[in-house]
Amino acid sequence: MQYTSEVVEQAVEALSGFPGIGRRTALRLVMHLLKRPDMEVARMAEALLKLKTDLFVCKICNNVSDGETCQVCSNPARESSLICVVEDYSDQMAIESTGQYRGVYHILGGLISPMDGIGPEDIHVNSLLKRAEDGSVNEVIMALSATVEGDTTMYYLARKLKDYGVKTSCIARGIAVGGEIEYADEITLARSLQQRTPYSV
Amino acid sequence: MQYTSEVVEQAVEALSGFPGIGRRTALRLVMHLLKRPDMEVARMAEALLKLKTDLFVCKICNNVSDGETCQVCSNPARESSLICVVEDYSDQMAIESTGQYRGVYHILGGLISPMDGIGPEDIHVNSLLKRAEDGSVNEVIMALSATVEGDTTMYYLARKLKDYGVKTSCIARGIAVGGEIEYADEITLARSLQQRTPYSV
Repeated sequence: MQYTSEVVEQAVEALSGFPGIGRRTALRLVMHLLKRPDMEVARMAEALLKLKTDLFVCKICNNVSDGETCQVCSNPARESSLICVVEDYSDQMAIESTGQYRGVYHILGGLISPMDGIGPEDIHVNSLLKRAEDGSVNEVIMALSATVEGDTTMYYLARKLKDYGVKTSCIARGIAVGGEIEYADEITLARSLQQRTPYSV
Repeated sequence: MQYTSEVVEQAVEALSGFPGIGRRTALRLVMHLLKRPDMEVARMAEALLKLKTDLFVCKICNNVSDGETCQVCSNPARESSLICVVEDYSDQMAIESTGQYRGVYHILGGLISPMDGIGPEDIHVNSLLKRAEDGSVNEVIMALSATVEGDTTMYYLARKLKDYGVKTSCIARGIAVGGEIEYADEITLARSLQQRTPYSV
């Protein structure tokens, strides 16, 4: 595309840095902004800047936070003896959205991956072990991806946490609710058979 | 989705205002920004703000411009006696991208649509007629959408420009290059037959 304006060009360049947004889509977004009131664009720019200036990392669980500790960690109604370990913020948000979890979280910020040279010291494992150290933690639920890296990380964490006498568990793998058995992959199906749950009537 | 941070919530809110971007995609974009360097986010915010502060409207053709007149209008190499009339900036950019057009543009900023109460005085028709007034314009190419509104606008413009002795033309309608006749709609196919061009060997 040929741009007759340097300003438009720069905005397109900036927006096309987003994942999944190419130059054509970026141009469409810029065209949208041109038609919006000045205030709205100013508010958007401010909201983006705030991501870098007003956002902190929770010193307990490493989650993104508006203050020193996040909303979950500073909520006395949450069970602090139950920790759910996740890879990233988005995983934490997904679990929080279920509205079913009353414990707290721990964000690892990555998974152990020897192939990529990522060891336990490169992710927030030590701070998790530190939380378990004083015996205040009852159970650690590991909600990590069902990949080689996820499995490696779970194995490592479970071994380490065992030394502290902390119970570990892993979220269930199986057929998705609403999923059809016909279309499920073999490994998931095999797992769902192995980990079948009692059905009471 | 539950957000543990007000700052994240605001950024998601702002980005989901874009057309075609829902809250889930917006969250993915925010997550991307959290991982990028501060400078990059600052540059993006600045680029968006500049759209409202540093962007002008060309006083000749109404195109977005970095100065009083746009790059096309102020380029002496462009044929100012040949004007291509388009509805919007994006149409102008699409035509400019072909690299085949050496004339100048006129952006209407809309189409005549009696159904929506949009008349010739609501779009930049008068400034186009003013450009044609002094006899310096040879031809006006109308590159408007093949819709009822586009056709209405073209008819109006052609009638008005005739009085000034300006030649008007309309971009060809037909089968797209690479398009298969089998899948073309009937109206386009009929038009492409009516407006067939001589084939010389």
